[in-house]
Amino acid sequence: MLLIPGPVSCSTEVIKALGTDSLSHTGGEFTPIFHNVLKQLRVLFHSPTSSGSMPLVISGSGTLGFDLVGNNLFPRGKNKILLLSTGYFSDEFGECLGDYYKHDITVLKSDVVGESINLVKLQDLLHKGSYDGVVMTHVDTSTGVLNDIKRISELVHSESPGTLVIVDAVCSLGCEEIRFDDWQLDFVLSASQKAVGAPTGLSISMISKRALDIALENDNTVSYYTSLKKWVPSIKSYEIGELPVTYFATPPIQLISALNIALQQLLSRDYVGEHRKRSNWFKKELTESLGLELVSRGPVETTAHGLASVYVANPGGIVTALNRLDIAIAGGIHPEIKGQYIRVGLMGCDASEPTLLRVLDAVRQSQT
Amino acid sequence: MLLIPGPVSCSTEVIKALGTDSLSHTGGEFTPIFHNVLKQLRVLFHSPTSSGSMPLVISGSGTLGFDLVGNNLFPRGKNKILLLSTGYFSDEFGECLGDYYKHDITVLKSDVVGESINLVKLQDLLHKGSYDGVVMTHVDTSTGVLNDIKRISELVHSESPGTLVIVDAVCSLGCEEIRFDDWQLDFVLSASQKAVGAPTGLSISMISKRALDIALENDNTVSYYTSLKKWVPSIKSYEIGELPVTYFATPPIQLISALNIALQQLLSRDYVGEHRKRSNWFKKELTESLGLELVSRGPVETTAHGLASVYVANPGGIVTALNRLDIAIAGGIHPEIKGQYIRVGLMGCDASEPTLLRVLDAVRQSQT
Repeated sequence: MLLIPGPVSCSTEVIKALGTDSLSHTGGEFTPIFHNVLKQLRVLFHSPTSSGSMPLVISGSGTLGFDLVGNNLFPRGKNKILLLSTGYFSDEFGECLGDYYKHDITVLKSDVVGESINLVKLQDLLHKGSYDGVVMTHVDTSTGVLNDIKRISELVHSESPGTLVIVDAVCSLGCEEIRFDDWQLDFVLSASQKAVGAPTGLSISMISKRALDIALENDNTVSYYTSLKKWVPSIKSYEIGELPVTYFATPPIQLISALNIALQQLLSRDYVGEHRKRSNWFKKELTESLGLELVSRGPVETTAHGLASVYVANPGGIVTALNRLDIAIAGGIHPEIKGQYIRVGLMGCDASEPTLLRVLDAVRQSQT
Repeated sequence: MLLIPGPVSCSTEVIKALGTDSLSHTGGEFTPIFHNVLKQLRVLFHSPTSSGSMPLVISGSGTLGFDLVGNNLFPRGKNKILLLSTGYFSDEFGECLGDYYKHDITVLKSDVVGESINLVKLQDLLHKGSYDGVVMTHVDTSTGVLNDIKRISELVHSESPGTLVIVDAVCSLGCEEIRFDDWQLDFVLSASQKAVGAPTGLSISMISKRALDIALENDNTVSYYTSLKKWVPSIKSYEIGELPVTYFATPPIQLISALNIALQQLLSRDYVGEHRKRSNWFKKELTESLGLELVSRGPVETTAHGLASVYVANPGGIVTALNRLDIAIAGGIHPEIKGQYIRVGLMGCDASEPTLLRVLDAVRQSQT
């Protein structure tokens, strides 16, 4: 039983689509599959073709999305980027943009570990400074903090309309609502192996028209494999779906076939509602019944719905006890509070009520 | 029937290993699988731990290997690189190193399309110039040209011992002999979906001790996702195989499980001998029985053993006729001769004698 916050357990149908032989990457069998994946991603992101946006699916892990941003969206030079930091993964994103792509990073940290970004402080910074991009983590998998990206984007657009709004949604796509066009987002990066319900190995993103224009005119990209000038013609040809498609690098046939089924299943359900309900119930059990404190602060309804991060007396003991029952949960990874909490994934096929009840039991026993 | 020069058809056992549910990427079930993959890659490359070399397996397509070279092996500045060009893929590699990573590229092209690199000219260039790296394609998938990387490496080491020897083995690993240590290679990049016999989605490489030392001390890497400083501690921890492993980015669980089986099967066979035999037979049928000319020049035994590139009167007609029989072969992609030839893959489970006989039939019929 896989109850870590990703990779998650996939459905039987997804695994069946995965366990098929290779197809020609430019042929008539695979092209409609990739076409369908891209079409469904537009539904998932609420972003039709008419908006000029574009979905991207690239062979690689979620981390590759950091490079798509750093390499393409800011023509090189000292670009000013405001990084909203709510945990380990925000800081990794900042390392990529600052230490590697040499952008000038200003960090706005949450006031306390577990809090989302302070909007008053954000408004103040936006008012005083001039930023080429604001970068945030929708859900930081290290803390379970959920940022209100809709309100943050509104703030950015009202204070600084030229600034790109960039979101890491690795741990939110498929379990939190993301209205790409309505919320005027410019780049959302995610991955296949969390709430989307597919295997690991695909970087999934959506890029706005204005960000795409920047990327395609950017003459200073330094990384070849993450250059959108190379990828966009190929992915666009799969989205059009007519042969011959344009080749750049061979797409991972089976992972894309599995993603196709995962998206069909996801979009046929009220995936936001289901994750909310499960998360709210589980977190109330942790806080109200067991009297524990979540790492993510505020009402449980406003914390990430794809995982629960909770302070416990003996994190290692609980992880080990559950391992013995064949249930994998995760320990903490936020450097400031690493040894003080556990993380329980609430995404994927194994995150059912009976299994979560067993987790609650193990937590209860360890507290006594 | 998949007879393109990759992706290839995988064995039933490989597809079975692929079609399994996700495991925890840091857990006790997956770690031994990744450990075995790395151990087997050392056997495939003839490079034991004692040499200080290191196998690398990263989520991404074969193209990602170009970035591993450009980003890590040459501390930035104008590095002088000698590119041995034998086709489309050599030129792509050159574009990555020159246009993106801004290295100073000198190109030595084969005298005529289809010829391997002229060793006298190479020796002359090495003698006159001073290069930080020599980059070559072992087998260029666009032409079927096979470079004698053993002799080229000997030449480089005797004329210019400080120069790194770098090989693109995307279309040769698993069907041509590669003795990494004996031949004193520094970096060999490849992929999972060709003669290795696994699905698409993994970049596979081997790096020498001296190249690894450069990469780990390189303070000027620009791409984050392809930075070996980030990957090496994680992959090394999987190679040691003890928990806890070091996290960088989530490895693609199922692809690595499939690769594990593909490598077991490959290493249990005389994969070099088998590919040689099949290729020599098929090419003699094309040249001696059908009187056709191969794109790759010289005795058939010295051309790539994983594919046949052959000039035909009506390439499109043959591709279409075979498509109707459910056999996929590939057209030409080398810009200078694009519409004049076909490419038939000789790797993977579908490349059997009965199927290849049907290809020969279709070619014969189209010539009359």
